[in-house]
Amino acid sequence: MGSPVYVINPNSSQTVMAAIDRAVAPLRSADGPDIVCLSLAEGPPGIQSQRDVDGVIMPMLRKAAELEEDAGAFVIACFSDPGLHALREQSGRRVFGIAECGVLTALTLGQRFGVIAILPTSIPRHLRYFGAMGVLDRFAADLPIGLGVADLSEEDRTLGRMIDVGNTLKTTHGADVLVMGCAGMARYRRALEQAVGIPIVEPTQAAVAMAVGHVRLSDAVTA
Amino acid sequence: MGSPVYVINPNSSQTVMAAIDRAVAPLRSADGPDIVCLSLAEGPPGIQSQRDVDGVIMPMLRKAAELEEDAGAFVIACFSDPGLHALREQSGRRVFGIAECGVLTALTLGQRFGVIAILPTSIPRHLRYFGAMGVLDRFAADLPIGLGVADLSEEDRTLGRMIDVGNTLKTTHGADVLVMGCAGMARYRRALEQAVGIPIVEPTQAAVAMAVGHVRLSDAVTA
Amino acid sequence: MGSPVYVINPNSSQTVMAAIDRAVAPLRSADGPDIVCLSLAEGPPGIQSQRDVDGVIMPMLRKAAELEEDAGAFVIACFSDPGLHALREQSGRRVFGIAECGVLTALTLGQRFGVIAILPTSIPRHLRYFGAMGVLDRFAADLPIGLGVADLSEEDRTLGRMIDVGNTLKTTHGADVLVMGCAGMARYRRALEQAVGIPIVEPTQAAVAMAVGHVRLSDAVTA
Amino acid sequence: MGSPVYVINPNSSQTVMAAIDRAVAPLRSADGPDIVCLSLAEGPPGIQSQRDVDGVIMPMLRKAAELEEDAGAFVIACFSDPGLHALREQSGRRVFGIAECGVLTALTLGQRFGVIAILPTSIPRHLRYFGAMGVLDRFAADLPIGLGVADLSEEDRTLGRMIDVGNTLKTTHGADVLVMGCAGMARYRRALEQAVGIPIVEPTQAAVAMAVGHVRLSDAVTA
Amino acid sequence: MGSPVYVINPNSSQTVMAAIDRAVAPLRSADGPDIVCLSLAEGPPGIQSQRDVDGVIMPMLRKAAELEEDAGAFVIACFSDPGLHALREQSGRRVFGIAECGVLTALTLGQRFGVIAILPTSIPRHLRYFGAMGVLDRFAADLPIGLGVADLSEEDRTLGRMIDVGNTLKTTHGADVLVMGCAGMARYRRALEQAVGIPIVEPTQAAVAMAVGHVRLSDAVTA
Amino acid sequence: MGSPVYVINPNSSQTVMAAIDRAVAPLRSADGPDIVCLSLAEGPPGIQSQRDVDGVIMPMLRKAAELEEDAGAFVIACFSDPGLHALREQSGRRVFGIAECGVLTALTLGQRFGVIAILPTSIPRHLRYFGAMGVLDRFAADLPIGLGVADLSEEDRTLGRMIDVGNTLKTTHGADVLVMGCAGMARYRRALEQAVGIPIVEPTQAAVAMAVGHVRLSDAVTA
Repeated sequence: MGSPVYVINPNSSQTVMAAIDRAVAPLRSADGPDIVCLSLAEGPPGIQSQRDVDGVIMPMLRKAAELEEDAGAFVIACFSDPGLHALREQSGRRVFGIAECGVLTALTLGQRFGVIAILPTSIPRHLRYFGAMGVLDRFAADLPIGLGVADLSEEDRTLGRMIDVGNTLKTTHGADVLVMGCAGMARYRRALEQAVGIPIVEPTQAAVAMAVGHVRLSDAVTA
Repeated sequence: MGSPVYVINPNSSQTVMAAIDRAVAPLRSADGPDIVCLSLAEGPPGIQSQRDVDGVIMPMLRKAAELEEDAGAFVIACFSDPGLHALREQSGRRVFGIAECGVLTALTLGQRFGVIAILPTSIPRHLRYFGAMGVLDRFAADLPIGLGVADLSEEDRTLGRMIDVGNTLKTTHGADVLVMGCAGMARYRRALEQAVGIPIVEPTQAAVAMAVGHVRLSDAVTA
Repeated sequence: MGSPVYVINPNSSQTVMAAIDRAVAPLRSADGPDIVCLSLAEGPPGIQSQRDVDGVIMPMLRKAAELEEDAGAFVIACFSDPGLHALREQSGRRVFGIAECGVLTALTLGQRFGVIAILPTSIPRHLRYFGAMGVLDRFAADLPIGLGVADLSEEDRTLGRMIDVGNTLKTTHGADVLVMGCAGMARYRRALEQAVGIPIVEPTQAAVAMAVGHVRLSDAVTA
Repeated sequence: MGSPVYVINPNSSQTVMAAIDRAVAPLRSADGPDIVCLSLAEGPPGIQSQRDVDGVIMPMLRKAAELEEDAGAFVIACFSDPGLHALREQSGRRVFGIAECGVLTALTLGQRFGVIAILPTSIPRHLRYFGAMGVLDRFAADLPIGLGVADLSEEDRTLGRMIDVGNTLKTTHGADVLVMGCAGMARYRRALEQAVGIPIVEPTQAAVAMAVGHVRLSDAVTA
Repeated sequence: MGSPVYVINPNSSQTVMAAIDRAVAPLRSADGPDIVCLSLAEGPPGIQSQRDVDGVIMPMLRKAAELEEDAGAFVIACFSDPGLHALREQSGRRVFGIAECGVLTALTLGQRFGVIAILPTSIPRHLRYFGAMGVLDRFAADLPIGLGVADLSEEDRTLGRMIDVGNTLKTTHGADVLVMGCAGMARYRRALEQAVGIPIVEPTQAAVAMAVGHVRLSDAVTA
Repeated sequence: MGSPVYVINPNSSQTVMAAIDRAVAPLRSADGPDIVCLSLAEGPPGIQSQRDVDGVIMPMLRKAAELEEDAGAFVIACFSDPGLHALREQSGRRVFGIAECGVLTALTLGQRFGVIAILPTSIPRHLRYFGAMGVLDRFAADLPIGLGVADLSEEDRTLGRMIDVGNTLKTTHGADVLVMGCAGMARYRRALEQAVGIPIVEPTQAAVAMAVGHVRLSDAVTA
């Protein structure tokens, strides 16, 4: 019922897309907007560099344009929020970025947020974005686990590193809430939260929750 | 289905409570958490001063303690977020404040947010809160309509002033998104948005949308 | 001579009150305002949680209302400055909070201030407050000694922990001035300063010094 | 009794010095530190340019060195706080700058402070200083009355301009407390406060109040 | 002589490119690096929207890759600095963005910088960028002249609007230095500076000056 | 050709001056402005304290006044930028400070800059300056090597300490670009960059590069 929320995973990985689909499943309701997850065939297997981020914007905009007519809202499911403002410009629908929503949701859960990034090279990109968002006064630190998107499926190694980084963010940097800095980390949220002992925000869930709320309110207004 | 979201309007006004109830109705779903709105009998008719804010915290905490057992989440429905952190301390559930969620949601809709306050005396209180939230780099201005909570039911006068203030926030102060700075303004959201031409965030809707998302995700995890 | 400065210790501890009284004694003068220290019978033995902070506001406001008529100024002697803005709203006198004055005084003594807190749970509360004050650009860190208010009377253990934390704030976090983050730490100020080697601000002294100055100036104007 | 507070007016004007002396007179007490005001013979008639500020530092340091032995504290009575950090480096006593203390005191009286400057060229200098102090999040605006130090003795014209500027700071820029941006404005404080209706901080009074408090506490410790 | 500075105008306009070439001509020297200006055939006639910005990144990166081997440095000559960080990632040479260099150069010329934008829609994009740069404490305002890139060649109208906007930035918003917010405004710099009376930074000149300095220093090191 | 850039080393050391002269040599061109380096006979051997900084301003201003007539621009070659704003006030030429230009140039090379200071006492002075510049959101840390200006000529010890401090700034504090915090460190730039593996800004080079660019553009305009 209602206009769907399109969750665009701008890489080409079906594995990541399926994981996102599972992560947001609880947000589906019998009488609410559908939540449709899709990958971007033109995207790279994982978005890891600034070039990857910038390179997916045009195909993502084209894909969104095809979906525009019946869309209720868009979610861009990559922690660099590629094309967020270009899609807001292009579309008549609300557009949610998972980094933006993940960080903002974290601000309701703790006073200083930490971020678990995949690679060291992600960090300056994140810092620029948090600066643009104006949230650096609430920022504790952003540390990498040193694994690429493809490596995230190796469960033991990935979770172990996330716990190490999470504990450092908590203990050394004073973070009292953490944001997962990649759309492909959802499966580890619960175990990580138990291990580190502070709230962990899975950013795609945060964004889709806000998107569903928006579509429900918006459909009601225009009904 | 699922643990209810309790929306506590910490004033004693049934009118405000009923308006809140209507505003959040579209967020109810057949298979999702119930959304239960209630007023605080011990609260003042409207919360307008710092004393009003501070004075409702203890009764609000008591009320929340009574509701704790089956609660999925709490929403404090007053734009000063009275007792937000005390309730987070007391409760094992997630607690959402409407000012916090309203402002954070606005950050997804524009680069500089303006706030429409009821009274001039609200403004320093809001400024302290936005400073504590660390969002002043995104803040345009906060201007009062000069009406108390009780006066908000006079529709023509209230809407007229809101449009005037909204236009000033947009034109003079460069706001590109507005937050309604009182739980009792929901009925004017749509008309105001049409008149001013930039997005208007109704903060209780923003908070309840985030709370519903949280309960759905949380129930799924623990199910 | 002159209207008294009322120093309200909002907990019920006579020990803390007596220590405050000793700490501010040098600020009394033969021809200046009296400095009257008092506890709040309704307060908890120590103010340690956000609930404690919020819970003492109403009784503190009532006590201050009783004292209003002949008061020259009020000082709220708890490092969370409970009810500071509500009392400013209620009273025709100047109201000083010890956290506010302690931090501001520290800004005249060093470029980056550290805070010695009692408990880990105090820290996010302090951070929100420093954000509301807009002083985070001057903030080094806030670290707990892990002792409650009642434990502060165990002198050796308390001083030892304060010195450890003070040295960490200085060496690891670059603080060049420290603020004692509790009204009950005054007796350790001198020893701590000698041990750590940077200035230590006792916040009640800082606030009462400003209050006395205000009363003298104000009495002169209205005389 | 006790070590005196030396208030160094770093210009050569006896008129300004006499006005400062009157302004701080209520802070003298029978049993407290003496407050000794003096001008700097080598200083210019008024300190108006950055060159004036920088040019008085060396003679001011020499003067302070002569006074060091029996000094309890120093106050530098020029709103650019010339040589504040050099004197802190040189002296074993506490050193207070009137701009620093005036602004910090204003932060206890309102949420956004405005400053009344003498000349337009003062403003970038003040802005750099407020940035160094880290208080720009609390800053409303700084506006000039367009009169030099020597002109401040023309009472009607000066007060009229101060009221105009004060009202603009309050109404247009949202200031709820004002700081007088020159040591030579003390005589207008009371009239200005009545005319504008928000608190006005006279910065030399603010600094001397803090200095007296410090000397009393410090003498007690070392007695 | 030495490795050339490539100035990439990422739109397809030969007019803009020729104007840039004239603007940077004085930075050429007999014995220094060549300065080669070029347009991007794949670019739009003018870069005005976020989509335009994002859309030129991939072709710009390809063009830069072709030029990499003998390049001494790159300058991206569009005020949105499209692909700045992607090119820094891709290239072994230093990369300068004109918005970044223009704003940083302005910080050496005044305390609060204003920006003259082409269109209202540019402003939130600029604000995000200034936030990412961390320079908002020095920011006065950013106002549009309401003309697209193509319209900038209408000299009288353009200059007139720039003077109006420049005066507003100076008088109403307190800017004491202005940055031209588009690579196509260079021809008006001198006239604008004379009309408004505060320094005007032409951002391509600012960036190329820094790039030339870098190449000279770098060639010397590696020679 | 063209008006010279005068680089004023405000200490009296001929060694430092000669090193500066070598460092900026690659910025000289056959047809560009001359670059004339000079020391200040009245200056101390090294500028290490706030008093040193303040004490050289008046002689530096006198020296600059003598050079004013044919000057194209001034560079103040001490990392505390002594007298920067006084000289801007006095002179009709552009004035560049090496700390200002060094830090701003660093902002084009990394997201978080670290500073290598000579002595611990330099650090609060630098922090005040970075606050006045408004760049603290981009600041990682500032750490001393613990050597005075005179000691910088002991090459092995100096380079070893700089590498240690540089690595700490990079690894512990997350700096991705470093600024040398003294005009006398130029000879170590290249070795330090190779050892630490992130860009190192030599601030006098940064300032002179900007000054040369300015003179070329300015001479062209007035030719």
